[in-house]
Amino acid sequence: MRIALDAMGGDLGPEMAIQGALAAVSDKSDLHVILVGPSERLNGQLAELGRGKNGALECISVHHASEVITMHDSPVDAVRKKKEATIMVGFDLVKNGAADAVVSAGNSGATMAAAIKKLGRLPGVARPGIASFFPTVKQPVMLMDIGANVDCRAQHLYQFAVMASSCSRLLQKQPRPRVGLLSNGAEVGKGNALVKETYELLVQSPLNFVGNVEGRDVYRGDVDVVVCDGFVGNISLKISEGLADAAMQMLKREIMKTWRAKLGYLLIRQALSGFKKQVDYAEYGGAPLLGINGTGIICHGASNAVAIRNAIEVASSMVRNRVNEAIIATLGEYSA
Amino acid sequence: MRIALDAMGGDLGPEMAIQGALAAVSDKSDLHVILVGPSERLNGQLAELGRGKNGALECISVHHASEVITMHDSPVDAVRKKKEATIMVGFDLVKNGAADAVVSAGNSGATMAAAIKKLGRLPGVARPGIASFFPTVKQPVMLMDIGANVDCRAQHLYQFAVMASSCSRLLQKQPRPRVGLLSNGAEVGKGNALVKETYELLVQSPLNFVGNVEGRDVYRGDVDVVVCDGFVGNISLKISEGLADAAMQMLKREIMKTWRAKLGYLLIRQALSGFKKQVDYAEYGGAPLLGINGTGIICHGASNAVAIRNAIEVASSMVRNRVNEAIIATLGEYSA
Repeated sequence: MRIALDAMGGDLGPEMAIQGALAAVSDKSDLHVILVGPSERLNGQLAELGRGKNGALECISVHHASEVITMHDSPVDAVRKKKEATIMVGFDLVKNGAADAVVSAGNSGATMAAAIKKLGRLPGVARPGIASFFPTVKQPVMLMDIGANVDCRAQHLYQFAVMASSCSRLLQKQPRPRVGLLSNGAEVGKGNALVKETYELLVQSPLNFVGNVEGRDVYRGDVDVVVCDGFVGNISLKISEGLADAAMQMLKREIMKTWRAKLGYLLIRQALSGFKKQVDYAEYGGAPLLGINGTGIICHGASNAVAIRNAIEVASSMVRNRVNEAIIATLGEYSA
Repeated sequence: MRIALDAMGGDLGPEMAIQGALAAVSDKSDLHVILVGPSERLNGQLAELGRGKNGALECISVHHASEVITMHDSPVDAVRKKKEATIMVGFDLVKNGAADAVVSAGNSGATMAAAIKKLGRLPGVARPGIASFFPTVKQPVMLMDIGANVDCRAQHLYQFAVMASSCSRLLQKQPRPRVGLLSNGAEVGKGNALVKETYELLVQSPLNFVGNVEGRDVYRGDVDVVVCDGFVGNISLKISEGLADAAMQMLKREIMKTWRAKLGYLLIRQALSGFKKQVDYAEYGGAPLLGINGTGIICHGASNAVAIRNAIEVASSMVRNRVNEAIIATLGEYSA
């Protein structure tokens, strides 16, 4: 299992990527990570951070790439102009058979654009999309699309359902993932025009479609897959992140008001970190690109080493479980 | 100031409405609340709950209405068939000049439908909508539309911006409310087709338009008004509610694991309730219907007495500050 890791993608610099790679190869004996980026710099940092970890260092190599696509670059322009960018070179490695998957914490639009340009779409897929795991009070739920396709037709949402369902079945070991359609009400007939049309496709499909789900239901964990267009999915994800940040700020402000509460805070700190671990995107292993003819995982820009390690694990699991073969088979079988 | 209160609307029964009314009239000397519902039952409960509060009881009356629209009723059917429903009778009181505004914690679709049927739209308004206050780390932000219009055109979103901006200016005392357009990225050019088209209208308008805002920005409190279609707004609201509930459940689960954390919890309990008060929709006074030719406030179905009292206060404030006159004037001035 060879994973190409965009070493220059994250906001926190290549150290995080290297630390993540070191952690990943320590966990798994059959794993090889290829760090993609400026070779001189990466080799130096790798030698330093990997000191005393000779076993791990044997499972990591560096592949040179001279350019970096930043968060400020337009995805379309960047993919056209920065041919030597880490993310482009990463997907080249997959294309040439030198790697099995790509992991990047960089510009997600550019990562998707590079994946499509280098690897193309899976046969039958109209629009690849980005799936993401959301924590819930039960097991995580996979929401798709979280931002690749802001204007969708019903056929696209239908394919998101098929792709995410295949992925959930294999990664989350759900024999028949329950698929919900994100809407403004659970009742039949609720939704905008797009949702109503998609409902008809899903209800006639052999997917385990449980009907409309409301925003409130996403975090209940009663479904395995939630389908929506990339505009709504992006807002759902970012509203959640924003609320979590704001709530933490407000709570801290209240706690800092009294000594009593400050003491209480010290006592619950461990419970708080257990809680944070449950809701932390870093624990969820990044967002799979689904529908591309290969395997790619996008991580949050602020990914730490744990997030990178988990993303490498999800990428490996997607390859090992042949998620793309399942998507092709299911799309063929279920074509709406 | 006479507010008609749908006494049968909330999930928690008429007691909550009565308690809310008692609290509201105790706060304000110029306020009269008209409880709308089955008069025998309401008079009995009012006498009981208002025992010893003769001053308050003088400011509350009961107006009979024999039917109730439930949460399960289809708004369109209910408004057509249940002519004697509390919410219909409430808007009749406004229409006939016997009340200045309606407050209801009932079926929000039916409340909007009843308002439009009984009072009509303000001149120039294509689509009335529902605005709602979201807590942020700074002052609350007004988001519109939260669910009345699931399929919108750019002109509708533009009018939401004008209406919410007028309302925010008068209720939140913001001389020039900062208006953001909810999108999947803050950069110019981000958004689905509807958002891109709306952006052009807003940027040319005299509104204090600050550009696209991401989901993450909603809770930062850097804008006063956030505009989106009712489908996206409904999902934003309910995703937030769902996350807040789930996070509280997960946190409690973690805290219950150790005695140390349980003790800590006792010490921060007061801080937690201060925090809850900040994020509690009950504190925000319900959701104004904007664009109808009158004043109506929708409350959350689970509203307690505090929420009802605050909604009555917002309704009074809208009437007192002549929000509708401001909307008409601003729409005329800014017609896109």
